[in-house]
Amino acid sequence: MSINSFGHIFRVTTWGESHGTAIGATIDGCPPGISITEELIQNFLDKRKPGQNKFTTQRKEADKVSILSGVFEKISTGTPIQLLINNTDQKSKDYGDISEKFRPGHADYTYFLKYGIRDYRGGGRSSARETAARVAAGAIAQLALKELQPNLEIYGYMIQLGNKKINANNFNLSNIPKNSFWCPDSEVVSEWEDYLLTLRKSGDSVGAIIEITIKGAPGGLGAPIYAKLDADLASSLMSINAVKGVELGNGMDVAKLAGSDNADEMFFDGGNVSFGSNHAGGILGGISTGQDIVTRFSVKPTSSILKPKQTINKKGDIVEIRTKGRHDPCVGIRAVPVGEAMVACVILDHFLLHRGQNGKNQGQIG
Amino acid sequence: MSINSFGHIFRVTTWGESHGTAIGATIDGCPPGISITEELIQNFLDKRKPGQNKFTTQRKEADKVSILSGVFEKISTGTPIQLLINNTDQKSKDYGDISEKFRPGHADYTYFLKYGIRDYRGGGRSSARETAARVAAGAIAQLALKELQPNLEIYGYMIQLGNKKINANNFNLSNIPKNSFWCPDSEVVSEWEDYLLTLRKSGDSVGAIIEITIKGAPGGLGAPIYAKLDADLASSLMSINAVKGVELGNGMDVAKLAGSDNADEMFFDGGNVSFGSNHAGGILGGISTGQDIVTRFSVKPTSSILKPKQTINKKGDIVEIRTKGRHDPCVGIRAVPVGEAMVACVILDHFLLHRGQNGKNQGQIG
Amino acid sequence: MSINSFGHIFRVTTWGESHGTAIGATIDGCPPGISITEELIQNFLDKRKPGQNKFTTQRKEADKVSILSGVFEKISTGTPIQLLINNTDQKSKDYGDISEKFRPGHADYTYFLKYGIRDYRGGGRSSARETAARVAAGAIAQLALKELQPNLEIYGYMIQLGNKKINANNFNLSNIPKNSFWCPDSEVVSEWEDYLLTLRKSGDSVGAIIEITIKGAPGGLGAPIYAKLDADLASSLMSINAVKGVELGNGMDVAKLAGSDNADEMFFDGGNVSFGSNHAGGILGGISTGQDIVTRFSVKPTSSILKPKQTINKKGDIVEIRTKGRHDPCVGIRAVPVGEAMVACVILDHFLLHRGQNGKNQGQIG
Amino acid sequence: MSINSFGHIFRVTTWGESHGTAIGATIDGCPPGISITEELIQNFLDKRKPGQNKFTTQRKEADKVSILSGVFEKISTGTPIQLLINNTDQKSKDYGDISEKFRPGHADYTYFLKYGIRDYRGGGRSSARETAARVAAGAIAQLALKELQPNLEIYGYMIQLGNKKINANNFNLSNIPKNSFWCPDSEVVSEWEDYLLTLRKSGDSVGAIIEITIKGAPGGLGAPIYAKLDADLASSLMSINAVKGVELGNGMDVAKLAGSDNADEMFFDGGNVSFGSNHAGGILGGISTGQDIVTRFSVKPTSSILKPKQTINKKGDIVEIRTKGRHDPCVGIRAVPVGEAMVACVILDHFLLHRGQNGKNQGQIG
Repeated sequence: MSINSFGHIFRVTTWGESHGTAIGATIDGCPPGISITEELIQNFLDKRKPGQNKFTTQRKEADKVSILSGVFEKISTGTPIQLLINNTDQKSKDYGDISEKFRPGHADYTYFLKYGIRDYRGGGRSSARETAARVAAGAIAQLALKELQPNLEIYGYMIQLGNKKINANNFNLSNIPKNSFWCPDSEVVSEWEDYLLTLRKSGDSVGAIIEITIKGAPGGLGAPIYAKLDADLASSLMSINAVKGVELGNGMDVAKLAGSDNADEMFFDGGNVSFGSNHAGGILGGISTGQDIVTRFSVKPTSSILKPKQTINKKGDIVEIRTKGRHDPCVGIRAVPVGEAMVACVILDHFLLHRGQNGKNQGQIG
Repeated sequence: MSINSFGHIFRVTTWGESHGTAIGATIDGCPPGISITEELIQNFLDKRKPGQNKFTTQRKEADKVSILSGVFEKISTGTPIQLLINNTDQKSKDYGDISEKFRPGHADYTYFLKYGIRDYRGGGRSSARETAARVAAGAIAQLALKELQPNLEIYGYMIQLGNKKINANNFNLSNIPKNSFWCPDSEVVSEWEDYLLTLRKSGDSVGAIIEITIKGAPGGLGAPIYAKLDADLASSLMSINAVKGVELGNGMDVAKLAGSDNADEMFFDGGNVSFGSNHAGGILGGISTGQDIVTRFSVKPTSSILKPKQTINKKGDIVEIRTKGRHDPCVGIRAVPVGEAMVACVILDHFLLHRGQNGKNQGQIG
Repeated sequence: MSINSFGHIFRVTTWGESHGTAIGATIDGCPPGISITEELIQNFLDKRKPGQNKFTTQRKEADKVSILSGVFEKISTGTPIQLLINNTDQKSKDYGDISEKFRPGHADYTYFLKYGIRDYRGGGRSSARETAARVAAGAIAQLALKELQPNLEIYGYMIQLGNKKINANNFNLSNIPKNSFWCPDSEVVSEWEDYLLTLRKSGDSVGAIIEITIKGAPGGLGAPIYAKLDADLASSLMSINAVKGVELGNGMDVAKLAGSDNADEMFFDGGNVSFGSNHAGGILGGISTGQDIVTRFSVKPTSSILKPKQTINKKGDIVEIRTKGRHDPCVGIRAVPVGEAMVACVILDHFLLHRGQNGKNQGQIG
Repeated sequence: MSINSFGHIFRVTTWGESHGTAIGATIDGCPPGISITEELIQNFLDKRKPGQNKFTTQRKEADKVSILSGVFEKISTGTPIQLLINNTDQKSKDYGDISEKFRPGHADYTYFLKYGIRDYRGGGRSSARETAARVAAGAIAQLALKELQPNLEIYGYMIQLGNKKINANNFNLSNIPKNSFWCPDSEVVSEWEDYLLTLRKSGDSVGAIIEITIKGAPGGLGAPIYAKLDADLASSLMSINAVKGVELGNGMDVAKLAGSDNADEMFFDGGNVSFGSNHAGGILGGISTGQDIVTRFSVKPTSSILKPKQTINKKGDIVEIRTKGRHDPCVGIRAVPVGEAMVACVILDHFLLHRGQNGKNQGQIG
């Protein structure tokens, strides 16, 4: 119910504004006995941190996380974990322009409309800075999954930048950490780099598509009808700033398939169930099959661009706006670890929910 | 939290299996004072009912709804509304085949895996029959919205069948009720008919894309960060059987846009705020802008097809399966009223949630 | 969140009005694999059913339960269980008097004030008839606990009728089913009978105190800080009609104790932890200790009495009211199985919640 | 659902351990536009702060609150408010004794049993120090109520210390702030002081009963059946450390009443509804009547006492324990502002929930 929280048992509440004192995440329902340190969480945050490469904002945020509660002698106690990240780069600059004008493509107008007041500094609550808190929470989820499901691995990567897609034949998970785009196709990287540099010089931005593959996810996760694993993944990813579409398996393209092609045939080798294909993206009827879970989301181009746009101010005057400042030409890059974090939280949450209701998987083949 | 419920204040719980005694919806948090009768709900159910046209299953279900509680002298009392739909067409046939075999593309295997037991008759809980309960709940939401937001209208329609898209130039909402596909482009209808008839004769099925436009939705609906209006729409639509993708505004295609094109410029005419475009689909930062809200979802092809597929049974034997029986060649058709119902529930729920926290919109231009 | 639901994982929603078509309970999150039949549930309902003895209302309700979903071949499937009880004794009598007048001590006025409309027939939603749905839900919880925690037993009984208390020295659980009051002290029964008969003849009613002891409850149930086992017990019992007080262990009398007397000393015999006393009622810090859990609640006297009382009607006229009809001189009697049902639901829910977050108890002595 | 959260729309999550870095409260769903400053919150915290008078622990905690988010230019923005209180008095003392031994009457054993690990320093999460976070959250609720319901006042006070009750004839709200006990009967104060001083010298402690009266609460708050106002008050108060009983109106004593005495008669003077008495404590059917809401709770004696008690350690050895350190002889004193805070949160939450579902009260007399 809580409007800034998500999750059933493993519940995450994020709080904080872009240029306030701090941001953070309150995590309730974490299993006890998990090894957690600030350093382990920092590894995840550093992946999202601004200024990591030439394609992300040069805003200098240390994104240094502190654990304020819920961890004792480096072990989770089962009580709420409070993670705090101070905002260190809040320049006391003049925000006058955006304090009165509503930036197109931003939440400025809707927050004003709804609440009558908004912290306009850097976008306040609606800033993508909030996603640092998600990544910190996702780190806790990853650390718990590592102990509860050691074989589970979550891979996020970019498969499309603007209208440039990767070549599926070159897909290799090992390429992901080797380039600025978390791109699994090493051959497309230099083209993407040129494209994005040109775009940034022109003061513009572009969208992207991120895919996340979860390997080693146990079957049986998810629950009918409104806590389906795919429904929870969809809302968790759609809640990320700038996301406008979410897909599972064949996604929107499933429309084009014939039923005879779409249904994934099943096999059994005496020990394990396997499938002839994975159009379903690892989820049937909202419950995981044990295959790879494959989900994708689109990220719209950064709305903060140097090119001038028409808009209005609070008085209703029609005015021009041009967003100065340090912004990402493609927020999709930094959305990769954010997507991974959301997925990690959802998977852990459903692991716990499943264990709660069912103890363990009940059915067995053979 | 509840796994078969959704909504914050207006909460819907559906229950029931395809071939059990009955299915239904328990609706909590409905505002009092709304005019509700069985006839008014029936209008919505009849739109989804099987056998309405030649492209939907010939299963004969009356889908007759009874109001068991929460309505007194045709007025909602604010207490839970129980809607019951008896299953009248439960043939006492031999289900032996599907009781042991797992139909590919269905939830047979995942339910078995998770619970150890499944009501295999007609798919049990995972059957699309459950969506009748959603439509009944959506009818309540529509009736409440009609009184609370008289100008709000929800239009669902099919924009793609297989790989055949509508021509945007022919788009006209008035065409929707005039054909078997709820298609807004009357010129594509005969081609779609031929295509689907051929497909059905071949024992196959196909997917579709449904779009829903909400006109007259007030601005200010939705809430940061995890009860965003688009996040709640995404999970509500992804929870519908066979849905594999959900989009808002430009959706997955937003990846291709430049920032300079994507951000919708704003205007003010002294009375109303307007926008130069609607790439955002009427939602910014998770909160409605007052523009049309535009969302889409893909529906995979019916997995129950006459063509034989390979699968396994409970013992682990590899076996062939061919789904006999009365099935829709494109479940996307009947998904249209289901999508409308989910959207109606989400919008009403956010109307109430917004009113709860904020009373009314707080900000005003001019 | 849902206003007519309770529970974290095992979630119960009740619905229905006293003189509507039916009442019932929607149960979500029940573990799969539990043996459930209508007969087994009926046993619990019969204990609460009106007309069981001379001290309960003579309203004739069969209280016959039907399972509409969630159970397949007498086994729970893990999907929502819908339990329906038809209202068979809705006399089409003239309700004119109470339709306009607000009965003192009843919810007539508050429902009218809040909702503007109320189903006045027999009290509508606020009637104690709703508790039949709780008992049906509690039966499911009891059946699940029987399989998951075979040693757990829940005993409800009356320890005070009006100002007449039982003699603690005569306390014996085996007496409970042997008298009309579920009283564990057989020696006080005839006095209570005389007292209540006299009271009924005079057209009056009286309150009572019910105690519930849970034997064999595992330690470790409950969760800090706002899902404490005692906090959830308190709200579940306080939600029962006519309840005005709830206690754990020494309850309100704990105020009188010195700290040196109150703290229950601990012992260990090499195998089991034991305690020197049980002032805490089996719960410390919101989590069960493994001792008997002991809770109590007070039930106010039936407000529907033959003696005339002053009140107002909708127009604001000051009028007299005298409730004719068939009412219990002490609703506390029938509150016993209702209390047991609520406690059963809470315990099962916390068993599942604990299993979800923690798997099993983590700490071990020795 | 969240185990460390409460509330429907106005949701409070507390976090933190007694001797960790900090404690705090995350508040979601606060209405926008409310005047909030650290100073205003501090006023409430100072009331609970240790060391305020000779009867509370001499632990020196500044209990200085910082607002980290959700407030912009001293006005609430509608986004999550993070309140942080640093733990300044964490003596790096040797906790060896209580790290291995389980203190009787404390949650040491149950936390160990459930989680396998516990932050034993000062009781960790189960310490009453957590209630400072509740008071901070309650301050936000009070500030919001002040603007939304200006006539509403919440009065908490002690009515019983040990077995010494106040004299109802001397009851006067104006006495409350004038003595160390928040006692409304000034004549009993010196006797209470002597009693408690003697008790403390003997190394012992004693329980108390606190009453809270809410004046000016609007009618119509609360919701059937499981979000009843009294049920939510009961769980919120029972969740406070050391509370063992909760009452509304006549509470446990309602058992002794006859129906003819208990039902509060109603009157109307052309403008307002009034009642002849208030046995119900201002709530009927779970919904407020508009009368004073009167609730009470018992607080057990501090379990940390100087007198030695028998207990066990982790190895299972039977050992003696004597709690050194700075403890309150009657924690009931400091429970007064905590109770007020919980009640404030519940009332505001139900105000928002009511407004969400119903807009405003629907029924009107006359």
